[in-house]
Amino acid sequence: MGIDGQKPLLPLLLLVIATVAVFPASSRSPPSQPAATLPSFRRAPLFPGKRSHPIKVQQRQQYNYQTRYFLQDLDHFSFADLPKFRQRYLINTEHWIGPERRGPIFLYCGNEGDIEWFAVNTGFVWEIAPRFGAMILFPEVPRHRYYGESMPYGSQEEAYKNATTLAYLTAEQAVADYAVLITDLKRNLSAENCPVVLFGGSYGGMLAAWMRLKYPHLTVGALASSAPILQFENIVPPDTFYNIVSNDFKRESTSCFDTIKKSWGEVEAEGRKDNGLSLLTKTFHFCRELKSTGDLIDWLESAYSYLAMVDYPYPSSFMMPLPGHPIREVCRKIDDSPEGSSVLERIFAGVSIYYNYTGTASCFELDDDPHGLDGWNWQACTEMVMPMSSDKETSMFPPYDFHYSDYEQDCWRTFSVLPRPRWVTTEFGGHDIRTALRTFGSNMIFSNGLLDPWSGGSVLQNVSDTITALVTEEGAHHIDLRPSTPGDPDWLIQQRATEIKLIRGWIDDYSRAKHQKSTFNM
Amino acid sequence: MGIDGQKPLLPLLLLVIATVAVFPASSRSPPSQPAATLPSFRRAPLFPGKRSHPIKVQQRQQYNYQTRYFLQDLDHFSFADLPKFRQRYLINTEHWIGPERRGPIFLYCGNEGDIEWFAVNTGFVWEIAPRFGAMILFPEVPRHRYYGESMPYGSQEEAYKNATTLAYLTAEQAVADYAVLITDLKRNLSAENCPVVLFGGSYGGMLAAWMRLKYPHLTVGALASSAPILQFENIVPPDTFYNIVSNDFKRESTSCFDTIKKSWGEVEAEGRKDNGLSLLTKTFHFCRELKSTGDLIDWLESAYSYLAMVDYPYPSSFMMPLPGHPIREVCRKIDDSPEGSSVLERIFAGVSIYYNYTGTASCFELDDDPHGLDGWNWQACTEMVMPMSSDKETSMFPPYDFHYSDYEQDCWRTFSVLPRPRWVTTEFGGHDIRTALRTFGSNMIFSNGLLDPWSGGSVLQNVSDTITALVTEEGAHHIDLRPSTPGDPDWLIQQRATEIKLIRGWIDDYSRAKHQKSTFNM
Repeated sequence: MGIDGQKPLLPLLLLVIATVAVFPASSRSPPSQPAATLPSFRRAPLFPGKRSHPIKVQQRQQYNYQTRYFLQDLDHFSFADLPKFRQRYLINTEHWIGPERRGPIFLYCGNEGDIEWFAVNTGFVWEIAPRFGAMILFPEVPRHRYYGESMPYGSQEEAYKNATTLAYLTAEQAVADYAVLITDLKRNLSAENCPVVLFGGSYGGMLAAWMRLKYPHLTVGALASSAPILQFENIVPPDTFYNIVSNDFKRESTSCFDTIKKSWGEVEAEGRKDNGLSLLTKTFHFCRELKSTGDLIDWLESAYSYLAMVDYPYPSSFMMPLPGHPIREVCRKIDDSPEGSSVLERIFAGVSIYYNYTGTASCFELDDDPHGLDGWNWQACTEMVMPMSSDKETSMFPPYDFHYSDYEQDCWRTFSVLPRPRWVTTEFGGHDIRTALRTFGSNMIFSNGLLDPWSGGSVLQNVSDTITALVTEEGAHHIDLRPSTPGDPDWLIQQRATEIKLIRGWIDDYSRAKHQKSTFNM
Repeated sequence: MGIDGQKPLLPLLLLVIATVAVFPASSRSPPSQPAATLPSFRRAPLFPGKRSHPIKVQQRQQYNYQTRYFLQDLDHFSFADLPKFRQRYLINTEHWIGPERRGPIFLYCGNEGDIEWFAVNTGFVWEIAPRFGAMILFPEVPRHRYYGESMPYGSQEEAYKNATTLAYLTAEQAVADYAVLITDLKRNLSAENCPVVLFGGSYGGMLAAWMRLKYPHLTVGALASSAPILQFENIVPPDTFYNIVSNDFKRESTSCFDTIKKSWGEVEAEGRKDNGLSLLTKTFHFCRELKSTGDLIDWLESAYSYLAMVDYPYPSSFMMPLPGHPIREVCRKIDDSPEGSSVLERIFAGVSIYYNYTGTASCFELDDDPHGLDGWNWQACTEMVMPMSSDKETSMFPPYDFHYSDYEQDCWRTFSVLPRPRWVTTEFGGHDIRTALRTFGSNMIFSNGLLDPWSGGSVLQNVSDTITALVTEEGAHHIDLRPSTPGDPDWLIQQRATEIKLIRGWIDDYSRAKHQKSTFNM
């Protein structure tokens, strides 16, 4: 990992760890992020959601929805003779005021995970729908095509078999799915005149923004929360992500930052000892013997990255059960370990806040196949090429320079596919985005919390009267979309109020235009 | 054809006849439009270009260009393991002022025919490029993918083999081809800051408009000439096209219109006689015996439809060598035939203006395979589902009601493919287009001549300050894009001047924004 020429893995953002909160480690220990042999590349970090929580009955009952299915074309942009697939979507119409009164339709653009998990973690949409008289749609919520139950080729096994069957797992196809679904649904309900508002967070936020740009005729606006649409090519510096994570730690405690920065060398030094991997296995309480120091480094990096994403001001269990301000707690453990504690003992105490906040895990398992044929890795190896580096000075992570050729080679090895690293910006734009958005975009909110490492790849300044950047200094990964809690700080309450006001404005403008049209028969 | 329950074919607009002008019928007679057995459907009428002229050396020398090739992905929207294909493009940089001075790039969006033919028939772009200091690009001009030399799978035979190989012949892929080509070319020339202006006529005009809507970040504006982007679903009445053709004849002469309207019954009556097909074969000078009256009706319909498209005020040979105001000449022949001429003799004298203006054809051949596996028929059977009817009262054609189920059946029979009749409007918009364009579009010109039957499916009213409809009462199919001639009427000169002014405005606005940006470092 950098230190000895090895390169760190991408933090598999939020996804990997998701499983853990559901099976709090006791007999089952939390899986973590592995790397038997460290690849010489970094795939795009994972967003939260890929390996998302199975929904507990209790959570499911919190929101009321029906599950339906819609038959989709696998490739909207060709007429090859391909099997269709059933797209799952959740629908709630209990507050919808119907087509005559142009009741809005709130469409959540699903992420790379189970839609039901995202539905219950997107309380904002559920909470505001009644006051808008809106229908709620979560099409194969947070996950789209190939995620959750919307599996082409009948089963996950078949769909993920190889590059041919995975071929159609792309953002353009996902957005086209939404376009076709919403068009069909509106026609069936005679709801052609009902305005559609898009919501999405993280990867889903990118889909919401892109759908607004590509299908403005089908939508009236988009709330794109924590959507790093600029994390491509050289639009933002490649060390942006890890610098933000690092600063999140530094702001809590410089010594915490220093200890973490120092720890990678300690891990390597320990690993070089005779019996070093055994020592590390013991220090970090792994259930099975470590195969390489890289596995451990990866496990630690993953924890720090996810912690930065979910550095919420109140206790949460989006990824793992965590206290409020979890980084503060991690750093407290690192800094306040008993006198004489080694660097690695401090680190273990710190990450235990993340991996074992409930205190029920007796040992930890590492994931076996982090680079296997899964959906997000496929996307990272095709369209979602997000260059990620770690700066020697400013980052607390092992230094690493992104090299596209290594990245490409690894993708070829894993999937027999070559990425198209410039395709996303060709298709959706990205370079000189302010000019582009100002010229042709409208009715978009880019909301970001600056603690979130993905915020650096998003839109952080107002672009025009109708394209608004809502930036909160203390916010983390799409916190605005989460259910409200009694512990919400004022800035969050204010942020959501602004969002509601802007969304109301989009709908009012739309209604006015429609009204004028019917009045003057334009 | 309507009269006895049979349905008329679609006029294979401009395409079929194109061959003829090149081989003025002597030993080779003009092919025409056939229908051994009349199918019970109408595919979208063909635009000019599909079977376009081979380029004569003389024409080719008129404009100066290099021919280059660019390797394209066959499916931009999936990562299936498909062969790449070489896209041909013509390029002229002799007047380009280069990247430092932000020299514009004029990109002609190719049609469904040979790019070289379109290049020489798009004199407007060549004529105005020097005054803009612009580069000219004709990527696989007028034809895109699968047309001309840009043939995937190595050969036309392979590419057109079946639905699997034809699958990627879609408008979205074509527009993505342009996006990828232009992005790559600009990067290679360090021309990222050079504004791209799109041009296109007919189907190419649709591509130009759609590209402007879908890739506004890559372009500064589009001149979409004679682009019937609203000829889908029920956006315009299905009898629009044939009503316009009919009115073109009626405005020249009511008796001409009446004679044509009466002729279909005469054809059927003659055909029912013993030896009727032989009599008709003789009357219409076919080289080989007619197989059905439908073939003849189709041949006539095709002539009328193309005549309406190329009803230019000066002599032209875009499709066929024709006099100026060709419909006027046709009607003169029909009306002024010698006393005692039968209806069918009059009709033959009339259409001879179209099929045999040079007078060198001694007999006429009918095409053998009008519904074969060709590109436009494929597109009509997948995305380009344009409902076409012929009204009993207002049209001079045999009455016909569009029935989608018949249409679908025929496509299944021909290509084993099911059309997606609602896809184009889902993908590109179409319903309530004024609101949509006003909200999110900018810098577009929709130019149309009202004699052109395709004008009814285009945008005929100004939409906003930056989306302009230029409508000329006496114009026909994308006449504005044609080379200027000494015979150009004032309205055409004026129309082109307005287009130049608007394009100049787009480029100036763009330069101002870029200048501000570099000055204030926005």
